[in-house]
Amino acid sequence: MELKAILFADERLQIIDQTLLPNAFNVIELKHLSQAVQAIRKLRVRGAPAIGITAAYALYREAVRLNNHGSLTYSLFLSAARKLKAARPTAVNLEWAVDKMLRTYQDKASVPPEIRLAALKDCAVMIHSEDQEICALIGQHGADIIHDGDTVLTHCNAGILATGGNGTALSVIYEARRQNKNIHVFVDETRPLGQGARLTYWELQTNNVPATLICDNVAGSLMKDGNVNMVIVGADRIALNGDFANKIGTYPLAVLARHHGIPFYCAAPYSTFDENLEDGSAIPIEIRENKEVTMLWKIKNSEQYNVYNPAFDVTPGSLLSGIITERGIIKKPFKRNIKKRIINSRSVS
Amino acid sequence: MELKAILFADERLQIIDQTLLPNAFNVIELKHLSQAVQAIRKLRVRGAPAIGITAAYALYREAVRLNNHGSLTYSLFLSAARKLKAARPTAVNLEWAVDKMLRTYQDKASVPPEIRLAALKDCAVMIHSEDQEICALIGQHGADIIHDGDTVLTHCNAGILATGGNGTALSVIYEARRQNKNIHVFVDETRPLGQGARLTYWELQTNNVPATLICDNVAGSLMKDGNVNMVIVGADRIALNGDFANKIGTYPLAVLARHHGIPFYCAAPYSTFDENLEDGSAIPIEIRENKEVTMLWKIKNSEQYNVYNPAFDVTPGSLLSGIITERGIIKKPFKRNIKKRIINSRSVS
Repeated sequence: MELKAILFADERLQIIDQTLLPNAFNVIELKHLSQAVQAIRKLRVRGAPAIGITAAYALYREAVRLNNHGSLTYSLFLSAARKLKAARPTAVNLEWAVDKMLRTYQDKASVPPEIRLAALKDCAVMIHSEDQEICALIGQHGADIIHDGDTVLTHCNAGILATGGNGTALSVIYEARRQNKNIHVFVDETRPLGQGARLTYWELQTNNVPATLICDNVAGSLMKDGNVNMVIVGADRIALNGDFANKIGTYPLAVLARHHGIPFYCAAPYSTFDENLEDGSAIPIEIRENKEVTMLWKIKNSEQYNVYNPAFDVTPGSLLSGIITERGIIKKPFKRNIKKRIINSRSVS
Repeated sequence: MELKAILFADERLQIIDQTLLPNAFNVIELKHLSQAVQAIRKLRVRGAPAIGITAAYALYREAVRLNNHGSLTYSLFLSAARKLKAARPTAVNLEWAVDKMLRTYQDKASVPPEIRLAALKDCAVMIHSEDQEICALIGQHGADIIHDGDTVLTHCNAGILATGGNGTALSVIYEARRQNKNIHVFVDETRPLGQGARLTYWELQTNNVPATLICDNVAGSLMKDGNVNMVIVGADRIALNGDFANKIGTYPLAVLARHHGIPFYCAAPYSTFDENLEDGSAIPIEIRENKEVTMLWKIKNSEQYNVYNPAFDVTPGSLLSGIITERGIIKKPFKRNIKKRIINSRSVS
């Protein structure tokens, strides 16, 4: 597919400004670290894998800038890394990509700066290209469980726009379509920021996948009426027991799917697993500002409104049918299988 | 409380235009039948009891108009009644109020028109004042199950703005507050039209009830985190087995409440029960236009979007803890208790 969330060429880091989609397709360059931090914070680039990739490139560019000023030190590089990590707390991929860059720096701490910079660039490019490959593999493994005639419900955007490749949850959809399976996708609009309405519906339309947009609160009755065969979502952080954080509204879908006996999957690369977390209780949940909720209603004095606006929720692994990864579909018991297939063999298969 | 959704005085029918709340408080007069039909269709007045009351007054005014033109016949009156009934199909209260007016007409078919008109006016005023009384009784019965310190979740608007009195679900809240119970209300924003964000939050704020606004898809994680003690919603049509239609998004709340062991109530007057329906499967569900969903996102070419926008869903009685009515709280078995306490004794207690 032609669409790419992140472009890195001729030493320039560019992203599609996703806050303007689908009405405007603006590619913006992230020249400075602060622009990258803001782009991540403001969701100009979003999606767990995509923000990891963006952060890696931004760190490389920051290292180049520091070197041009004769001030490339680990301490300054680490300070930049911390700013990126702090931009959004929930998705572990951001932390993972930044840590990978930090390790690369340390490995090359004593070589000439040019060689160190080359290694940092290679690392960022590798994170990006590996993600592309992983997305394709997730699509292939996931497509096995999609049957001709299925209707699949998805939430938020776990597509091309969220990754370095064809997406995670949506890669499964794209691959099933490539295999000529006749499927239909129900797209949750995904309040408050409408990633489903603005991004996923548009992405699917652009790629000729039949889709229907619904408000988040319609999924329940669709399931009750027998109109949903499967739910597939992305993930921002997965604990060792399968508990996972994803866009707010994922957890109620999982409960609804369980109530109706509908398979519920998440799709994610190995970098989304957090080997430091036994379960989901310690996943940091980003709370965002009130106006994200109130602005659409154009409410006067809405800054006085008492709004609770968490960006994510945590779904217990017990409600998951499986986790679609580049290594295949991980099934229960998650504790054993995540350790065996992800943690103990951390490299792309 | 001062706020009234519907005003009838000096032969003028006035409503608050609820589509403009909370930013503008515009009282508009419904002079012609077509204005009343449009006001109901466009949700300028909404809420099952409120649209019934509005329709009754509008029918009375139409009868006066017809009489002034020397053309008051049952056939023309019936035609007006049918236009009102067709404005919104799901809430049975509209049908119920219109049928009550039709019966009044028929009862007075052979008396002088002035007497017939007086009877129609009395009927409309009675529907209105009875609803006010019913709301108060619902509040009193419901407040018994609210404990000091409770957090209550509600959806859409089942308040002053939805009725001729203090509301149904919100009347319970207001009465509990009046009894000095310290409670907190979580208000679902209620996509697509934001009745929670625009109406309920504002109504509660106006009446000094502590409240927090959330996106509809936040309710699940709030429940999971133990932050919701009870769910109370309104109803638009209740079948004999307790199955009931209410604003889209009610059903997923019921499933979530069941999953978390949280009591789930609906509150409604006797006129919301449909004695012709054994269960909820035949409740007509109003499907509304695409742009209600897409307009907030200002999506270009959104008329080409494939959107499924049902205004209501049906919750099985099996998920209900009880139905708060003016006759007390109806518990299971619903089939027996609804027949005994509502259908077989259809008058306000």
